[in-house]
Formats: sequence, C-alpha cells, structure tokens
Amino acid sequence: MPSVDPAWLPPGAFRALGTRRTLIRGSGPLVETVHEEVAEACARFGGRVVRGSGPADTGDDLVLELTGSDGSEAFTYEREGGRTTVTASGQAGLLHGLFHVVRLGEDAFRGEPVRETHRPAVALRMVDHWDNVAVHPVMGQVERGYAGGSLFWADGRARGEMERVRAYGRLLAACGINAVAVNNVNVHETEARLLTDRIGEVAEIAGALRPYGIRTHLSVTFAAPVLLGKLATADPLDASVRAWWAEASARVYEVIEDFGGFVVKADSEGQPGPFAYGRSHADGANMLAGALAPHGGTVHWRAFVYDHRQDWRDRTTDRARAAYDHFTPLDGEFAANAVLQVKHGPLDFQVREPVSPLIGAMPGTRLAVEVQATQEYTGQQRHVCWLGPMWSEVLRFRQEGEEGAPVGELGRGGLVAVSNAGDDPFWTGHPLAQANLYTFGRLAWQPDADPDSVLDEWIRLTFGPAQTSDPVRLRDGLHAVLDGSWRTYEKYTAPLGVGFMVQPGHHYGPSVDGYEYSPWGTYHFADRDGIGVDRSAATGTGFAAQYLKPWAQVYESPDTCPDELLLFFHHVSYDHVLHSGKTVIQHIYDTHFEGVTEVEQAREVWASLADLVDPARHARVAERYEEQLRSAREWRDQVNSYFFRKSGVPDAHGRRIH
Amino acid sequence: MPSVDPAWLPPGAFRALGTRRTLIRGSGPLVETVHEEVAEACARFGGRVVRGSGPADTGDDLVLELTGSDGSEAFTYEREGGRTTVTASGQAGLLHGLFHVVRLGEDAFRGEPVRETHRPAVALRMVDHWDNVAVHPVMGQVERGYAGGSLFWADGRARGEMERVRAYGRLLAACGINAVAVNNVNVHETEARLLTDRIGEVAEIAGALRPYGIRTHLSVTFAAPVLLGKLATADPLDASVRAWWAEASARVYEVIEDFGGFVVKADSEGQPGPFAYGRSHADGANMLAGALAPHGGTVHWRAFVYDHRQDWRDRTTDRARAAYDHFTPLDGEFAANAVLQVKHGPLDFQVREPVSPLIGAMPGTRLAVEVQATQEYTGQQRHVCWLGPMWSEVLRFRQEGEEGAPVGELGRGGLVAVSNAGDDPFWTGHPLAQANLYTFGRLAWQPDADPDSVLDEWIRLTFGPAQTSDPVRLRDGLHAVLDGSWRTYEKYTAPLGVGFMVQPGHHYGPSVDGYEYSPWGTYHFADRDGIGVDRSAATGTGFAAQYLKPWAQVYESPDTCPDELLLFFHHVSYDHVLHSGKTVIQHIYDTHFEGVTEVEQAREVWASLADLVDPARHARVAERYEEQLRSAREWRDQVNSYFFRKSGVPDAHGRRIH
Repeated sequence: MPSVDPAWLPPGAFRALGTRRTLIRGSGPLVETVHEEVAEACARFGGRVVRGSGPADTGDDLVLELTGSDGSEAFTYEREGGRTTVTASGQAGLLHGLFHVVRLGEDAFRGEPVRETHRPAVALRMVDHWDNVAVHPVMGQVERGYAGGSLFWADGRARGEMERVRAYGRLLAACGINAVAVNNVNVHETEARLLTDRIGEVAEIAGALRPYGIRTHLSVTFAAPVLLGKLATADPLDASVRAWWAEASARVYEVIEDFGGFVVKADSEGQPGPFAYGRSHADGANMLAGALAPHGGTVHWRAFVYDHRQDWRDRTTDRARAAYDHFTPLDGEFAANAVLQVKHGPLDFQVREPVSPLIGAMPGTRLAVEVQATQEYTGQQRHVCWLGPMWSEVLRFRQEGEEGAPVGELGRGGLVAVSNAGDDPFWTGHPLAQANLYTFGRLAWQPDADPDSVLDEWIRLTFGPAQTSDPVRLRDGLHAVLDGSWRTYEKYTAPLGVGFMVQPGHHYGPSVDGYEYSPWGTYHFADRDGIGVDRSAATGTGFAAQYLKPWAQVYESPDTCPDELLLFFHHVSYDHVLHSGKTVIQHIYDTHFEGVTEVEQAREVWASLADLVDPARHARVAERYEEQLRSAREWRDQVNSYFFRKSGVPDAHGRRIH
Repeated sequence: MPSVDPAWLPPGAFRALGTRRTLIRGSGPLVETVHEEVAEACARFGGRVVRGSGPADTGDDLVLELTGSDGSEAFTYEREGGRTTVTASGQAGLLHGLFHVVRLGEDAFRGEPVRETHRPAVALRMVDHWDNVAVHPVMGQVERGYAGGSLFWADGRARGEMERVRAYGRLLAACGINAVAVNNVNVHETEARLLTDRIGEVAEIAGALRPYGIRTHLSVTFAAPVLLGKLATADPLDASVRAWWAEASARVYEVIEDFGGFVVKADSEGQPGPFAYGRSHADGANMLAGALAPHGGTVHWRAFVYDHRQDWRDRTTDRARAAYDHFTPLDGEFAANAVLQVKHGPLDFQVREPVSPLIGAMPGTRLAVEVQATQEYTGQQRHVCWLGPMWSEVLRFRQEGEEGAPVGELGRGGLVAVSNAGDDPFWTGHPLAQANLYTFGRLAWQPDADPDSVLDEWIRLTFGPAQTSDPVRLRDGLHAVLDGSWRTYEKYTAPLGVGFMVQPGHHYGPSVDGYEYSPWGTYHFADRDGIGVDRSAATGTGFAAQYLKPWAQVYESPDTCPDELLLFFHHVSYDHVLHSGKTVIQHIYDTHFEGVTEVEQAREVWASLADLVDPARHARVAERYEEQLRSAREWRDQVNSYFFRKSGVPDAHGRRIH
C-alpha cells in the first residue's frame, strides 16, 4: 500500500491503550480484530495484551469481554477501581467498545467511576460509493468524486488493493459505520455484471471489510433480468423475473454470506424501473426484497424520483413535491426488508434546504435518510465546508413540532452518506474533508450528538498530542476554520435557500442562470422585482402543505418562514425585509462580501498553523484555500453583479459591484 | 465507396453535355480529368467525345481546347454558329471551363452568340478542415463538425477512402475551390506528426485531390521543432529552428510536389506561438514563409489572436479590438508568401458582426478572409441557415465607403471557409447545407456574384429536371426555405448584433448569460435598463475608431449605427427607438416571435415538396426541421423571458412570455 494518511487513527491515538495491560476475553473473528489492534498498540507503546477466560488480574488496566454471541453492536463501558471494562454481547459491540476507549484516550482510564451502555440509534449506518467500475465518459471513475479514483475499481477492473480497502473499513468502523455500497447507483453496463459473473470481485471487497464488522451492499440495475438474464421483461410481477432475481440473490449469498443487500435507483434520471411495466415502486422494491429475504438481506430503494425533463415554462410542476407525491400513497405496502432511502432535502443536497417532508410521512414504511458527504454542491472538496452542523440540524428537526420525534429517530431504516473517499493519499482530497466522513459516522451512531463535540473528537484523534507540539493552539485553529465553514459557504453561494446557481454539468462554481431555463426543475425565477419560488399552498405549488401542522403553517407565510429558507418557499421583492431587519437585496450583498472575508480569514488562520501540522498536509490545505478564495470571489462577484444588474439597487455601503 | 449523395453533380446535370459531340484538344493530367468527365457523360447520354489537334469538325457541338501550359485558371467561353468553345491557357482553366458548361446546361448550347472570359477574382479559394486525426476527448473527430466523421481521418489513422476524397475534390472543383487544408488548426500531438513521419498520409490525400486541380495544405504547430525535432526551442530567429523547418518543408515537397503550404494558429486559445520567445507574429510567419519559399508554398497565418482568459469584470479590454491591435503595427513586415488569414468579423463567426476593420487596414500585407461554412454558431447543420447573403454582404462591404474597394478585392490573399463537409452520406449532415459549401466556392471565384443567382445555380444542378418532376415548383419551394433562412436564424437568436448567448462549450441552443461571466471576452452587459457593448470612441472601448472614415463615424453614434449592429457598438436602454421605429425591447419580442413563425412556415413548405424530392433526402430535412423548430421555440422563449424578466416591459401585442 502506498503511503496513505492515517486520518483519525494515527498510531499516537492508541498511546493510552498501548501503554497499558489489556485482557481480552472471548473468541471469534472480530475479537481477533480487537486483539490485533490492541497487540499492535502494545507493541508500539510497551503495553501488554493477554487472552483468557479466568478472572482479571490486578494488573489488568482494561478488560474487553465478549459476553454472548448475538449480533448486537452495543457495549457497556465501565470504569471503577482503577480498571476499565468493556463488555458486549456481540463481537461488533466489542469492536465499537474498543474504538470508544481509543477515542477517550487517557480519559478512558481516569476520573470518576462510570458505567454507560452505548448502542447505535440507527442499525444501518452506510456509506454509498458512486464509484464506477469502468470510467464513465462524462462522470469519470467516481461520479461526483473529488478524491481521486475509486478505492475499489480502476479502468474497468477491480483495483485489488485489499490492504487499502481493509484500512478504509477500519476507519469507517472507528467512527461507527457498518455498511458500504461499493458501486454507483447509476448502474452502467459494466457495473451491472457485478451482480452475476463479476460477483467474485465484490466478494473480495466484502472479505476485506468483514474483519471490521462492515457488510457489503451492491447497487443493481432494475433491468438486470433483461440485460444480464436475457429475459424479455423486467416486470416485477412476472414469475420468470422473480425467479431470476431469487436465483441471482442466492448466488450472491453463496459467495458473500453476510451480504447486506441491494441499493436501487429506479425510474430516476433515466434509470430503468417498474413504471415501464405499469407497476408501482412498492411492487419493484418488494420483488427484490423477496429475493433477499431468505438470506437476511435488505433492499434500499431510493426515493429520488422526479421529472428530470421538465419544461421550465411550466410553473405548476414542482420537483420539490415529487418524492412525497410518488411515495406517500404507497405507505404500508413495502416489505419489512425494504427500506426507502430518502434524500434529506426535497431537492438535491443543496447547501440549504428544508428537511424533506417525506421523512415522517410514511409511518408504515422503513425509511433511511441519505446525506451527501461528497461535496457535489458544497465546494467539491476544494472548499472547506464541514457539514456537521447541517446534518445535525436535519437530524434534530421535528416534523411534528416540539413534541414530535426528531428525524434521527424517524429515519430508523438507516442513515446513509454518499462517500467522499477515494484513492487520494488523504482519502478525501481535501484533508479537512475527512471531518465530514468522521462526523457522519458518529452522527449515524448517535443522531442527537453535539456536532461540535464530534468535531473536537476528530481533532483530538487526528491532531492529538502525538501529532503536534501545541495541541491547544492547533485545536483552536481547526475549530476556527471548520466550525463556521458551512455557513460561510452558504454566504457566498446561492442565497436564502434558493439553491443551485451552479455551473451546469459539473456543478462547481457559479452560474446564476445556469439551471434557470433547463429541464431539471431547479429554478429561482429572479426578475427585476424579486426572486424565489412560491411553494405556498395559497398561491404557489403547494409544497409547503406537504408538511405537518406546525411547519406547514410556518413555511406557508413569508412572515413566519425562517430567513434562511425564504426563497425556497416564497417569491419576494428585493426590498422585502427579513427577520434580520435587512432587505433581501442587501442581505445578498452583505453575505457575499462577508463570505469572502471569512474565507480570507480562515486562510490566514490556516497559514498560522504551519508549524503545527505535517508539511504535506499543510501544503495541500493551503493550496486548496487559494482555490477556495478565488472561487469564493467569483461567486461573490457574479451573484452580486447579477442581482445588481437585475434589481438596480445599489449596495447600502457603496462597495464595488461590477 | 458507400452510397453517397451526388450533391450538385448528379448524373442528370451532365445531360446537355452528354448528348452532344465534344472535341478535346490538348494534353496533361487535368485534360485527362476533363476527358473522363465528358466521356462518362457521353456514355450515359449517348453523345461522343473525340481527341485531336486538327480543326473542329462541323459535327462538334463543343470544343474544349488547351492553348498553353501556364498555371492560369481562367478560360474563355464562346458560342457562335451552333458551336460552343472553351479555351484556356492552363489545364485548371480548362477544367473550370468544363464545369461552366455543365452549370449552364442546355443554355451552354443555345441563344445569342457570346464571348466571355472568366477568371477567378481570388487566386486561393480554400476550405480548411478542422479535422482531428485522433478523436479529441472534448472536440471529437472533427472540431465544430456537424456532418459525421472526417473525410480524411478516423480514430487516429488515415481513413483511406481515396475514392470519396476524389469525389469531394470533384465537388469542390465544380464550384471553384482549389485548395484544402486537411487538418485542424488546433494541432494536437497526433496531428503534429503529419508534418514529418506521417506526411505519406497527407500525400495520399493530395494525390486524390490533384486530378481536380486542388492543392493540399497542412495545419502545423508552431512548437513542431520542440515537439518533433527535440530542439530546445521553437524561437523563429534561432538558426537551428530555421534549419529544422527548412528541412521539414523540403521533405514535404519531396512527396507532395505541389504542396500548398502551412496553416498556422499561433498564440491563440492556448496554441504555441512566437510570443513565448519575445518574437512578433511577423517573425513567426516569415520564418515559415522562408522555409516554404524555395518550393512555391505559402504560409497562412491566422489573425485570431486575443486574450481568452479575460476577466469579465474588466470592461476596458475588448476582444473585438484584438486582431487589429495585434497586427496593424506589423503591416509591411510579412514576407511575400505569407498570408494573414483574418476572420470576416472581429469576434467569431456570429450570425451578425460588422466586417473586421483589419481587412483593408494592412495595405502592405497579403490578407485572406476566413468565413465559416460549418455552422458552429448558425444552427450546426440542424437548422437551415443559408449563409450566401451574409458572405455576400461581407464581400461587398467597402471599408472606405462608396469609393473604396470591396472586401472581395481587399482579401486577395485568398478566401477561406471552414469546411462543413464530413463523412455523412449527404456530405454536410443537413442536405440543404450543401448550398453553403457551393455558394462559398462560387463567391470565392467571383465575390461580387449575386448570391441569389448562385443559389439558383445550385438548385438547378442539384434538383434539376433530371431529378424531379416539377423543377419550377421545387425551385420556388427551395428559394422559399433558403433565401431568408439566415435572417430567420438571426431573428430567433441573439438580437441586434450582440452575439453569443449560446450554451457554453458546444455552442448549440440558447443560454443568454452563458458567456456573460466567462473569460472569453464575449459579453452583452444586459441589466434592468438596457443592453449592449459600448464600443464607441467617445465613451466605450474605442473599437469603432479602428474603422476608416465613413464607418468610424457611422458606428460611433447610436443615431447612425445600423439597427442590426446597434448592440454590437452601443449600450442602449430597452426603450431606445430603432430606425425601424420600434423600441429595442419590442424589436426583441417581435423578431423572436417572427423567427419561429418563419421556421414553421418553412417546415410547411418543405413538407409540400415531398413528392418532388428523393424520399431519403426529404426525410432527413424534414426530421431536421422538427429539431430546428423545437430549438427555435426554445430560443424565442428563453430570450423573451430573459428580457421580460429583466426589463419588466410587457409585449405590446400581449403575446405569452413565460
């Protein structure tokens, strides 16, 4: 394996553990993984690891004990009388308990007695890789990938770097992730064959991830029976189609016993699906669920279904409505092992969207919430944009108001992130984008966790005392550049929730009208008087009425709609006064000037940390800050010029607008 | 050769000739070509061809006589006493005389006695192929090609279809073209080698074109001595560089005795050039001219030099000024066999531009005028857009006013078109786009020709009596769809000479702001009050002052500037009243509605001709009309919506604007 960044598991993170004596009790493959981790730490730092089934010795600082043989991921962490004990009834629980100890560092072994049981709030915590096996002529090796090539595939073949895949699995497990989908949801011809004659390549990946308790999933094409099976139809109610999928699934399980299941993007942006046969998405999902059920697999069926060939002249069609309109009528019809995978917002991973009203609107259906760690619309890992606060807002959002359950509970079918990792030596292109992957995993485990604490955890692990001479100054500096980076990005890009305004196709950099006259259903309707999309029930598309009581009312009126979502829900004039007291147009100018200033400041902060960070990492980030600043200025100037030309309103502070 | 459309040389076009008795006098390779043409026509239609040197027999209807052995392309056409005689002092002249007889049809042999001498106004009448040898990852096999693949190259290799190349040369000769550049002016790595180890492939093409009097030219990269010769520099004043080019040129002439010369795009859009060495473009061109001079070759040096990385915020830089600013200081410095090849307009082949002020501003330099038959910005051969009237306007334009010489005389260094032909069975993708190639050739021969007569000629040849049951109805229909097609296209696209507003990259379809915030120097500056680029000397970029007396004054003021160029030269308010009496905004609305209506009408006319046109050709055109109409409506709606949203001015006629 070429030199790869250790990310949040540098050797130094294991110092507290590695200097102590650890007793491991129990057996099984993941217990062996635990043993290897401890043994390596001890070899490095002089501690000792012993195996046994008898009582602990007085010299044992840490006891890691498997107490059962179930599949639980929970563990109990206990500290008393100078000894720390982790017990778990399942092997995966013991592994998570080990990483808990690693995260705590010295604190795992000191302080007041404590006894805590930790269990993941969400059973399935998955990263989806939009990796292509064959390089796609437009989308490349990784669709929306900004971290080099794929960890799994290269130029049509399996990459075969199993050591790297295993290292990836280790990083994922250490932040709580337990599932990986290894290929793009847009399944092209080459990738389709992973399901059948190329399943061996998937099995190899599964084998490398398994020691860290991670199950492997596969994106499949709904047209597989036609494409691969040479059947005349892929109709989900056709007996031969069902038989084909049952057999195909059985073969998968022959080589991957713990295979997680299928991920399906159907009837979406040109992908095939059940609509072609006059069947519902429940028919489609259930057919695949039926094929997986005997083996314990799950089908993840994406709810990203909308008309991507919309006529921009048609203002009655609203893409934001589409998922809710398509799927709520099917509530209760989905099989128990079918999970509906819903993007967190109604559109497509914009820097600011309301939470999708579909989440919580299907009580009889298992729902998974999908977020995007790969920064397609948030700077493409050239800009610093730590998404923890955004994801946390989503997960804490309560569809039914204060009394209701938060999204983190509603999405119990799983929490899914589109991965931001690739074969880049830093894993994520931008070294600081590692924080997004880590934060996702930790929030998936505990959706109500405080994102700032998670970030602090990531900083401690990644840049802890073993890595730097002044951890306090480094920590403060990293918080300074990361904490507010999402809001900074929001400031210099599309304003007030209106979204898009990106260059068509690659989605990097500004183009205010880039999607305005397009078939993609993403418009801002700016004219000389105002801007925004009227999604009210009274005068607009009615999208606001898809929400439950408190929010349907809040979003319905510009008077109550939160500023940051105003243009998502309403078309208002440029002189509309926000709750902030500013007009919309002055808000646009101010935020765009501020956003650039904040990037300039962050760049300075980063420069000041040069003596505390590994030179290669520091240089990589510094170089990306140059690009971020260039790009932020372009955003500022294009957006401000566009709205100045359109509104004619001068900046209240007389700043230069071109 | 697969079945290929005969274009303007269908067998029936040779009927008048083929039913008669022809005497051919003289010898030489092109005389043999003449003989073959006549013999084939006679074989088909029952006439007779004889060779001899004695006096003509009373039975000879046509005498084709070579009277000398010079290189002249002129011929004398004479009709008297029931006999038609063509005499020429050069073989190429005899060939052109033959095609003159073909064009006249029966009229060549009837009517009053006549004696005319025809000679081309322009010695070099060239088509430049922007064909790549290797498929370019972005630009494809043919850059800006809309007629399938290349006639010469396929997937990195010579295509090898010499019969097709010869047929192409025959079509070109029949309309007066005598030179072909066989590869793209953007010379990539593979193409660079055509100059050296792959010159044999060029020689093969030259061999296939030679029987029709066509010389072959090659686009070369200025960096060739570095790239191919492994020299450390390409400095044009370096002795080793000069020696390298001299030797490379000599080798070319060893295999292509009548090689035409080099075409060079230097210091332009990323291509290498003399600026890298602190040398002028005259230094660069003259160095190549020196290498070619001993062999009778010419270097065509393109004047398309501008800053393609301009900052859109910078309103002082004006791309329109660039060619004039770069080249006029070098007047008189170019070698006698160096030709400066100037695009007809100051920007880039827009549907409407003023004539480049550079043409006529360099009396001490040989200038060639370049037009674009390939319809990059004029519908990409999916829209009908016959460019004859535009080219004719350019060629008749008089830089010094009524007393001065027209562009057709100023550009005596040659008339060049970027070819619109490819390996498409109809040669040009859209069958009616053949008219552009034909018209270009005829205008190159005679720049003051009436374009309508040329079109009529093309119709007679292509759709003559032998091809259709009702030539009159067909002719009227073709005039109806072609005559005004350029003005129709202008109506529904960018208004009043402002240009661009196309989708970035591929340049097809509307995007009003597509190039507005880009580095390409192509802006319209539309705001809520008005639109246009102030290029006046008084308050703008000063471009208007690059013109000579009458036009500098005419263009300087919005009061005298012609309506169709108003926004090219001036930024005016939407309520500015044009000479037509309409406001700018109402003009925009009206022309966009009219343009679409005109396409609808043209489509109907074409449909009504179904019984008169070969079904395959009719279907191809009909299918393209569907796309043209869809696209024209998109242009209309996007442009009208854009300006309605920006200006707030309603349509005076209350039509629907989205």
